[in-house]
Amino acid sequence: MKTVCFGEIMLRLSPPGFERFLQSPQFVATFGGGEANVAVSLATFGCESHYVTRLPANAIGDSAVKSLRAEGVRTEHIVRGGDRIGVYYAESSASQRASQVIYDRARSAIAEMTPGTVDWATVLSGAKWFHCTGITPALGDNGAACAKEALEAAKAAGATVSMDLNFRKKLWTEKKAQSVMRPLMASVDVVIANEEDIQSVLGFEVHGTDVTTGALNLAAYKATAAEVARTFDCALIAITLRESHSASDNGWSAVIYDKATGEFQRSQHYDVRLVDRIGGGDSFAGGLIYGLVSGKSPIDALRFAVAASALKQTIPGDFNRVTVDEVERLVKGDGSGRVQR
Amino acid sequence: MKTVCFGEIMLRLSPPGFERFLQSPQFVATFGGGEANVAVSLATFGCESHYVTRLPANAIGDSAVKSLRAEGVRTEHIVRGGDRIGVYYAESSASQRASQVIYDRARSAIAEMTPGTVDWATVLSGAKWFHCTGITPALGDNGAACAKEALEAAKAAGATVSMDLNFRKKLWTEKKAQSVMRPLMASVDVVIANEEDIQSVLGFEVHGTDVTTGALNLAAYKATAAEVARTFDCALIAITLRESHSASDNGWSAVIYDKATGEFQRSQHYDVRLVDRIGGGDSFAGGLIYGLVSGKSPIDALRFAVAASALKQTIPGDFNRVTVDEVERLVKGDGSGRVQR
Amino acid sequence: MKTVCFGEIMLRLSPPGFERFLQSPQFVATFGGGEANVAVSLATFGCESHYVTRLPANAIGDSAVKSLRAEGVRTEHIVRGGDRIGVYYAESSASQRASQVIYDRARSAIAEMTPGTVDWATVLSGAKWFHCTGITPALGDNGAACAKEALEAAKAAGATVSMDLNFRKKLWTEKKAQSVMRPLMASVDVVIANEEDIQSVLGFEVHGTDVTTGALNLAAYKATAAEVARTFDCALIAITLRESHSASDNGWSAVIYDKATGEFQRSQHYDVRLVDRIGGGDSFAGGLIYGLVSGKSPIDALRFAVAASALKQTIPGDFNRVTVDEVERLVKGDGSGRVQR
Amino acid sequence: MKTVCFGEIMLRLSPPGFERFLQSPQFVATFGGGEANVAVSLATFGCESHYVTRLPANAIGDSAVKSLRAEGVRTEHIVRGGDRIGVYYAESSASQRASQVIYDRARSAIAEMTPGTVDWATVLSGAKWFHCTGITPALGDNGAACAKEALEAAKAAGATVSMDLNFRKKLWTEKKAQSVMRPLMASVDVVIANEEDIQSVLGFEVHGTDVTTGALNLAAYKATAAEVARTFDCALIAITLRESHSASDNGWSAVIYDKATGEFQRSQHYDVRLVDRIGGGDSFAGGLIYGLVSGKSPIDALRFAVAASALKQTIPGDFNRVTVDEVERLVKGDGSGRVQR
Amino acid sequence: MKTVCFGEIMLRLSPPGFERFLQSPQFVATFGGGEANVAVSLATFGCESHYVTRLPANAIGDSAVKSLRAEGVRTEHIVRGGDRIGVYYAESSASQRASQVIYDRARSAIAEMTPGTVDWATVLSGAKWFHCTGITPALGDNGAACAKEALEAAKAAGATVSMDLNFRKKLWTEKKAQSVMRPLMASVDVVIANEEDIQSVLGFEVHGTDVTTGALNLAAYKATAAEVARTFDCALIAITLRESHSASDNGWSAVIYDKATGEFQRSQHYDVRLVDRIGGGDSFAGGLIYGLVSGKSPIDALRFAVAASALKQTIPGDFNRVTVDEVERLVKGDGSGRVQR
Amino acid sequence: MKTVCFGEIMLRLSPPGFERFLQSPQFVATFGGGEANVAVSLATFGCESHYVTRLPANAIGDSAVKSLRAEGVRTEHIVRGGDRIGVYYAESSASQRASQVIYDRARSAIAEMTPGTVDWATVLSGAKWFHCTGITPALGDNGAACAKEALEAAKAAGATVSMDLNFRKKLWTEKKAQSVMRPLMASVDVVIANEEDIQSVLGFEVHGTDVTTGALNLAAYKATAAEVARTFDCALIAITLRESHSASDNGWSAVIYDKATGEFQRSQHYDVRLVDRIGGGDSFAGGLIYGLVSGKSPIDALRFAVAASALKQTIPGDFNRVTVDEVERLVKGDGSGRVQR
Repeated sequence: MKTVCFGEIMLRLSPPGFERFLQSPQFVATFGGGEANVAVSLATFGCESHYVTRLPANAIGDSAVKSLRAEGVRTEHIVRGGDRIGVYYAESSASQRASQVIYDRARSAIAEMTPGTVDWATVLSGAKWFHCTGITPALGDNGAACAKEALEAAKAAGATVSMDLNFRKKLWTEKKAQSVMRPLMASVDVVIANEEDIQSVLGFEVHGTDVTTGALNLAAYKATAAEVARTFDCALIAITLRESHSASDNGWSAVIYDKATGEFQRSQHYDVRLVDRIGGGDSFAGGLIYGLVSGKSPIDALRFAVAASALKQTIPGDFNRVTVDEVERLVKGDGSGRVQR
Repeated sequence: MKTVCFGEIMLRLSPPGFERFLQSPQFVATFGGGEANVAVSLATFGCESHYVTRLPANAIGDSAVKSLRAEGVRTEHIVRGGDRIGVYYAESSASQRASQVIYDRARSAIAEMTPGTVDWATVLSGAKWFHCTGITPALGDNGAACAKEALEAAKAAGATVSMDLNFRKKLWTEKKAQSVMRPLMASVDVVIANEEDIQSVLGFEVHGTDVTTGALNLAAYKATAAEVARTFDCALIAITLRESHSASDNGWSAVIYDKATGEFQRSQHYDVRLVDRIGGGDSFAGGLIYGLVSGKSPIDALRFAVAASALKQTIPGDFNRVTVDEVERLVKGDGSGRVQR
Repeated sequence: MKTVCFGEIMLRLSPPGFERFLQSPQFVATFGGGEANVAVSLATFGCESHYVTRLPANAIGDSAVKSLRAEGVRTEHIVRGGDRIGVYYAESSASQRASQVIYDRARSAIAEMTPGTVDWATVLSGAKWFHCTGITPALGDNGAACAKEALEAAKAAGATVSMDLNFRKKLWTEKKAQSVMRPLMASVDVVIANEEDIQSVLGFEVHGTDVTTGALNLAAYKATAAEVARTFDCALIAITLRESHSASDNGWSAVIYDKATGEFQRSQHYDVRLVDRIGGGDSFAGGLIYGLVSGKSPIDALRFAVAASALKQTIPGDFNRVTVDEVERLVKGDGSGRVQR
Repeated sequence: MKTVCFGEIMLRLSPPGFERFLQSPQFVATFGGGEANVAVSLATFGCESHYVTRLPANAIGDSAVKSLRAEGVRTEHIVRGGDRIGVYYAESSASQRASQVIYDRARSAIAEMTPGTVDWATVLSGAKWFHCTGITPALGDNGAACAKEALEAAKAAGATVSMDLNFRKKLWTEKKAQSVMRPLMASVDVVIANEEDIQSVLGFEVHGTDVTTGALNLAAYKATAAEVARTFDCALIAITLRESHSASDNGWSAVIYDKATGEFQRSQHYDVRLVDRIGGGDSFAGGLIYGLVSGKSPIDALRFAVAASALKQTIPGDFNRVTVDEVERLVKGDGSGRVQR
Repeated sequence: MKTVCFGEIMLRLSPPGFERFLQSPQFVATFGGGEANVAVSLATFGCESHYVTRLPANAIGDSAVKSLRAEGVRTEHIVRGGDRIGVYYAESSASQRASQVIYDRARSAIAEMTPGTVDWATVLSGAKWFHCTGITPALGDNGAACAKEALEAAKAAGATVSMDLNFRKKLWTEKKAQSVMRPLMASVDVVIANEEDIQSVLGFEVHGTDVTTGALNLAAYKATAAEVARTFDCALIAITLRESHSASDNGWSAVIYDKATGEFQRSQHYDVRLVDRIGGGDSFAGGLIYGLVSGKSPIDALRFAVAASALKQTIPGDFNRVTVDEVERLVKGDGSGRVQR
Repeated sequence: MKTVCFGEIMLRLSPPGFERFLQSPQFVATFGGGEANVAVSLATFGCESHYVTRLPANAIGDSAVKSLRAEGVRTEHIVRGGDRIGVYYAESSASQRASQVIYDRARSAIAEMTPGTVDWATVLSGAKWFHCTGITPALGDNGAACAKEALEAAKAAGATVSMDLNFRKKLWTEKKAQSVMRPLMASVDVVIANEEDIQSVLGFEVHGTDVTTGALNLAAYKATAAEVARTFDCALIAITLRESHSASDNGWSAVIYDKATGEFQRSQHYDVRLVDRIGGGDSFAGGLIYGLVSGKSPIDALRFAVAASALKQTIPGDFNRVTVDEVERLVKGDGSGRVQR
């Protein structure tokens, strides 16, 4: 099954262990990005997963390509050009201390890409699914225009289109986000979001929920999801529910609303001892898309996605390095973590 | 007090921290193995602890010897020969993600050793205790024959004989295990097992217990232990009880059945935040043997063993690097982890 | 605001991760010490923070100076001389396993310093605050004499004087501590202590409290605090309350007694997943002094101090590397550890 | 240009820096192997480079595939199966101390592969070049049979066939090597060898040369090369000439004999300060094949190959991570190593 | 003695050891930059060394400040603002393989600084020396304008002004460099350059010298230096002479022309086994300025500078971490590298 | 063959690679010391090598014991007690930059040991050889008295006694050294020294030699050696000859004078590319003693010793980790460093 993801991939620089930036003169240097992480999940789960982005024609850009290729992502449609790869600095968090992320992604190769650069008809030929996120339009006018071009091409090519709203308050305001994103929703079939995104990006309020503590009002979620589906004519609305007890311990589950049936279902729930929560939402999207594209029902895809993303959050780095077997075993209930030997 | 352990020692290759295999091009490289870990515990606790194994006559075999010698284990009876040392690859686990172990131990030097290689009369002269595990017979016909030879020699030499059942489903089936192990029990005085082993290796069912979740039925354990003791005429049956809440958090305790008195006692219980659970059972065996050989009562030896093995699971690597003092302090109740300064 | 701290700074040698000493041939090598850690907190929070100590005139002494200077501490009053820097070896702890600290600090440059070495009038000119701890007098007769000289000079210079009692049973006995420390209290305005210190160093018993488990009797604390304040005519008595559930999980809060008003108040409470608890008390002192010197009320300073020190315990190394903003955010209640992006 | 290489890929375990095995409990863990290294060179230089091997269906086998895929090697024809990946332990050398290599490659997945496993007609369809080495037949009867099958299929498919003789005295004797390899030469167009190989593998003596010191007798090389070309009807014979002054410093050059013209030419010469000489010969083969397949004359291909392999020996790991541009720059004479900025 | 340096400081990301970029997912992360490196040398040698730059107000900017402060550089005139710190990626080189440097420094905080930002009168008050390099004007129009402002202010404040020409072909063309730099020379007293810079930046040709191999024509250097001194009325012209035998071995010396006396002198010469040549030229400048500002004659300052910079090239990172004593010992002729114990 | 060495063993703290102290917050932590290094060589070469020292009864002392035990040294006569282990900080050197060593060894456990502590009669029973060095007497009056006691006991026990003069100018003056060491020579059979030691420790001048450059006057060496042998009635005088071209490259050879025959012979000569020269002299002593105790002639023992110590200097850490086979291969002339595979 051919899938296509489009967006940025950045160099991620993290201090070792629980250190703050540059306590030691060392960075763990990996690659990641909202859409790239999804592409990796899909390749790992066995899809013919293509990634489209733009990267500078230098050795760091080459390394980004290698990082994707190693995981089985098809990189032949990656455009080379521009001056720099985006960089983000990310600390690990613990207990009451939040993870700190510093973006240095302005004027990256992808942020300066303009419509017409990618031959979308070729890229999307035979694709069953197209995925992008709210980060690409947040990169600026170029990003928004390229996202629009890609979404419309995907729709035209007959792919199912998913959009992870992924609000980034360091990139744009809620107001700007809504003005750009709401029109893009016309091409979207499956909306993926966390608790905050729906309000920040689409402007729909979820009543009775405190994002910081994770207290939940499921009825309100259902109402909002239905409204989003109705407004933008989307088939499925999936929302992750993170209970942030601390930077070390989170509750993790998700809900899905199916416009066709009006059903609103909640997944299993995990108490996750976090190793690296960055990429958690992306691994959820990757699991959900894999589930749906491989023929699971919405609730089964959701359950797969929640298990996959629970596992991701126990692995360092943006990418979700788990097999379908490992996810399925957890879905079936074995979260005991016993050694297999 | 002279003790003798017999079995394999392998090279253990683990990725750093919580990484999956080869996320970074690096392995933490240590040595370990069910019986070797016990020998290290006994040396660390002050016994004259001898280890018998077979290792290739190359630099990696030398390093395995050094790793034991450093910890004070007597290595003069280790036989050098064969083609290779067994290797096992082990990932750290976290939360819902299980530790993955890949064995590459076929045709190791010890697996190809044949009876008659070791001069057991010399090795066992003056020994108070002999220990081996169900892993050695699981290595194949050679291993089973060598284990039989060693057990009988130990019995003849007047040593107390302990056997950790240690079922490894990647090495043999339950059926095969039972056909090999049950006859060996004739030489065994002290049986050490976890919840699954008794059923897998000896074929006695423990009713009402769910191994994955750790729910316990103590009465059933007592009944089974008594049956094992009666069937094979063993003096003591010690069983570890692990509650696998997740790969990060386990409950940990043990029970012991004393055939002479018919008493069945349970140890103290710890909630362990796991650092490295591999070798946990071995450190229990090491603690129990040390307790018994140094004259403690069965329940006191059990309490020592449970504390020792709780501490082991907070230390990276197979070996238990704790002193008798540290274990005794925990037995007396100080599990607060306060800095000593 | 100019502040002055006086005491030792040592080389800290710790094994990587959760390893025990020299499992790997490697030490993480940082610097720290009770008073130096406070000086770093004060510089980080924006004070003109001076540190006074004595260090050998070699490259390791230079590195200690660099470690302070990097954090913005003013080092121009550090005296260079003597034979060696004190060293301490510290293991990380986990679960039931306590952190082990081995001191090799005898005959360090500061322990062999004699009164008259520092020109305290110059150092303290314009200083608003002077801080030292019970560790310096515990270094021996020289340390006690130098602490006395410094405390009296600070009092004379009009600085507010704080003293963290910081009992170290590896350095002296309770009896010796009391005989040295009680006379020094004449110069002290603000007493900082943990649960044990008041009894060990000053000889006042706190009834109904079990230090190991952290069970609390607040009324008893109030009574004792009031008695200390009355006896030594101290304005404020701040006491940290650590509930040592294990080496991985602690409860953390503090109380403060205000002699002027007779008020006894308790801070907010945190359940801390520990990364490195060494320096936790020092970061509390640093936060409290910063709060008071910057004009906060005692309870607000206490709340700032407790939040600052909760955060410190999630960071490796002795120093507290957090900004005023991060502390204030936690004081305001966001302990969710969500990624800021 | 499609190229196909066939052979083993092993896990390489090396101690950090100049340490001997397990001075530190750590291995640098990379992948390499005579033919795999050539495949990586060809992919890096821009060929459509396919690699054929057999790897176990476990996470270590997956990592080997990833290591190739990252470098752009096409891995779709890799067969998964068998019990284990071959391992080799390799120390860095320095000055008078030789690099020590310990093989643990017996019974690897590829060594147990049998003819008929690979659909060579499909694999070789459209291939311009096929490369294997004398290591594969040295793995045992299976290896020899599979190499024979592959060579004949390549010849039949119209690919140019190169063979790096690569004698490994730890795998077989000279006598055995000659009996297996001489018949295989019928399918070979281009022979690649070092000074020793021609004698050890093919049985032709080179007079007047001391392999250990690298003293050269070019006339003798020419005579031997001509004899090899004539005997086996090979078009080109390329021989690397290493002057082993010490483990830190080598002279490096090569010669090539062209049967068609009878010309015997020597390349430029480099004094190489070695970083990692393992894979040096493979990078020479990779460079030579790239040169020839991309249309260079024999001497120009040789010059490219010598420069490429000189650069390789300054890079850790088996793989040659240099671009065509970097090689061409060195060929043109800039070996000054000046910083490009 | 107060000195002021002005320019950029960047984050330097280098792979470990001799690896190429991202062979391992790790960067050694330090800070450096042409002028910052000089400021560090001057502080290390005991000057009151101030550094002026502009850095973003985030944790990475803070770390850059800490890196300077640790070495004793005065940082109170550093301006905080702008979006990002410049980054450069630098590989280690070896033998025939050149070090690769990738700049990602466009739109850094300093490159977007405009004249008027720094209160130069205050900064330069009492300064004996001002130093900048040709890199700052190469950053763009802002950089050129700020450099001009600073140079004129320094001249007006009575400081001796040095300029390291430091041509960077990745930042600008020779033509552009000359048009910007020649007018700036009016404020310069001491010119520092390598062999290429004089031609690239000032447009004066040195005849008979091959930069790549380092063959020298001293008479030509003297003629050119005299011409530069005459044209721009500069007191001293110092030129480093690097013989790039390979990336591992360089010859190193320098010459100085004194306009007042017309003397042209050459320093001692070192064969340097390179560890890290980046910052070599800066450490020469730092040594020369220290020598001159502390009253040495031009030739003695030159000899000090050449020794200091030879030592720098044996130390990883941009900064020169050597004491005046170590430099003087080498100047006196002890380059034997014997252990001092 | 039983051998006994007596002296200190210290914790060695070195920065990684070529870094200066604490550029990174990390130390490579190993153990070493003049006599301990010899004991390790002897154990590695197959002797029953005993080491006698005194170490504190803490975990760092335990680690020192483990480091010896791992290498096969017998540690049962090590006395535990005292306050601390000696520490030395050692940087790697390169090119013109000398290795810097900082001692923090005052008041170590061994330096505070007094005569009567060791039961020398038991320790030396059956010993063929006893070795100590001039470092132990240099530790102070205790050290000198203990060395005297040990030397006399060794002589009385019939062991051959060797003394490596090992002058350490950071521990004592030449005058003090001579006054202590000359009387001790009465018990010495074999003197081991480098070029400086004979003059510094024994007061005999070697004419016409420049220690720094290594220029040699062999006739003068012979004369001096003969005078030493005659004066103290020593059987053999062995002197290492190091040509310190730079910290990266040394020439290495040795001479031996045999009093019985009057022969003065020089060994083979190596140009060593240094990895870690610390312990080089000790590995020479270890090789020489092994050679003599295993029955080689003086010149053959010398040749073995020079080869062994050339190899040592290519290995990080104090200990010489080479086999007899590796040394013999180099003695026979293979210093080409070719890979063995």
